[in-house]
Amino acid sequence: MIYQLDLIGTAVFATAGVLSAGGKRMDLFGVVVVAMVSALGGGTLRDVILNANPVFWVNDPLYLYVAGLAALVTFYAATHVSRIPPAVFLVADAMGLAVFTIIGASKAFNLGAPYLVVVIMGVMTGVAGGIMRDMLCAQIPLVLRREIYATACLVGGGMFVVLAHLEAPQNLLIPLPMVAVLAVRLAAIYWHMSLPVFGDSEN
Amino acid sequence: MIYQLDLIGTAVFATAGVLSAGGKRMDLFGVVVVAMVSALGGGTLRDVILNANPVFWVNDPLYLYVAGLAALVTFYAATHVSRIPPAVFLVADAMGLAVFTIIGASKAFNLGAPYLVVVIMGVMTGVAGGIMRDMLCAQIPLVLRREIYATACLVGGGMFVVLAHLEAPQNLLIPLPMVAVLAVRLAAIYWHMSLPVFGDSEN
Amino acid sequence: MIYQLDLIGTAVFATAGVLSAGGKRMDLFGVVVVAMVSALGGGTLRDVILNANPVFWVNDPLYLYVAGLAALVTFYAATHVSRIPPAVFLVADAMGLAVFTIIGASKAFNLGAPYLVVVIMGVMTGVAGGIMRDMLCAQIPLVLRREIYATACLVGGGMFVVLAHLEAPQNLLIPLPMVAVLAVRLAAIYWHMSLPVFGDSEN
Repeated sequence: MIYQLDLIGTAVFATAGVLSAGGKRMDLFGVVVVAMVSALGGGTLRDVILNANPVFWVNDPLYLYVAGLAALVTFYAATHVSRIPPAVFLVADAMGLAVFTIIGASKAFNLGAPYLVVVIMGVMTGVAGGIMRDMLCAQIPLVLRREIYATACLVGGGMFVVLAHLEAPQNLLIPLPMVAVLAVRLAAIYWHMSLPVFGDSEN
Repeated sequence: MIYQLDLIGTAVFATAGVLSAGGKRMDLFGVVVVAMVSALGGGTLRDVILNANPVFWVNDPLYLYVAGLAALVTFYAATHVSRIPPAVFLVADAMGLAVFTIIGASKAFNLGAPYLVVVIMGVMTGVAGGIMRDMLCAQIPLVLRREIYATACLVGGGMFVVLAHLEAPQNLLIPLPMVAVLAVRLAAIYWHMSLPVFGDSEN
Repeated sequence: MIYQLDLIGTAVFATAGVLSAGGKRMDLFGVVVVAMVSALGGGTLRDVILNANPVFWVNDPLYLYVAGLAALVTFYAATHVSRIPPAVFLVADAMGLAVFTIIGASKAFNLGAPYLVVVIMGVMTGVAGGIMRDMLCAQIPLVLRREIYATACLVGGGMFVVLAHLEAPQNLLIPLPMVAVLAVRLAAIYWHMSLPVFGDSEN
């Protein structure tokens, strides 16, 4: 169940990556690379830093097939994909974010990382792929500038750590923080919540 | 023989890295960093992701000397180097690409990676250094936009996997895919072949 | 003592990271990420390449708390922090550079890396965080363009290797190269020394 959600999140993030590469005049190869980096970059960085041996997609190339296929479909069906209402994408992206974050935190926890590292690995799994994608596209990463996105990961990662510390049962430990990420993210979209910006007079 | 070709490829990629940094107002240190990243970045990323312990140039610093020396020569002899006909560089670069790709695929195969990962590691070894170089120079990586470059790596990596699966003899397993990369790349240069671009009406 | 210096260097680099993100319209999360990358990026890359298991801050999250706290203080006290004279920052940054470089070289040496790799790991620990920060901000890294900065690391790293080869006593092996980095960097600031720039007629 978690595994299927993870694969769906991979497809969603790959599709979002392709759409964000529009207007950059990338060719088919570039689009696939951007999609792969968007979908797999966060988990790859997490596994490299935690020295999880080996990186998840090296053992299970199904992630590569899913990300590649999603990229190809989006590339060749871009006009159809772009007709999907933005709200559908925002919700799908929020679900992908929730799954990636809590799977990342859970992996770090199972490897015995300290609590703060567990939270950071959750956030990293959720947002680092998008940051790398924007770096590839030579622009300042959107996630560092916009409304509450990473904060949703922080809330979910924090809740995961609290539940893990309290030795919550498995059927709550993973789903509850996922719902928290999703709820915070959807609330932020709905009410246009945002964090203070550096350099603004309020600081 | 393969090892010598690898070192020559390293020098060629370092030189190309320096030349691409022209006009960016980099100082001597910056130029050497860009050259090193161009020449060694792809293999470094491959080894980090495969958890090949340690990264190739940590064990064999000759790669560092070759890349550094090529960078220094190019820096101080830039006016002479820039008089070399572009065709010479394109062919040298194509040979470096062929060597890097198949060495990368071969390393992943010997570490027991699945076939798709073997192909991806070949492509990564061939093109990731150039992508990192362009990211350092704050521009959208050329390889994500231009004519068939990475595709040559894909063809060669795919051929390597097929030959490896068929248990081809060693004296064919490495050279044949190298020639394939070189042939596809040179054909692409000669006939200006390119991949479809995202956003074009043809898609 | 070295450990305390390392933590102070972490705080200084995090603060410098936040200040460099001014004018990029980053939100609180973005500012913290830029600070973390500035302060911890170099050591992280070093540990990943050397396969030091695990990365230093995974075992000792105090580094994360120090970098995060420095980022928050700088974010909310930016008007006060920006009133600190630039000279104080330059000296603090030079001290951070000295500590990071020699700790990085020392770690590589203790892991048995060849001498050239020891020097490179020192330089990488000192400057890679700043390079990643500038890449996140979509600009050509300052350290690749400006006056003698990385060169100070090279001098200190080289001196460390010579002292280590001569089996110098521990109470000299670390402090002496640190002072060398600091001296070269401060001299470069004071006399505006710089390296030749690629493309200038003098080359």
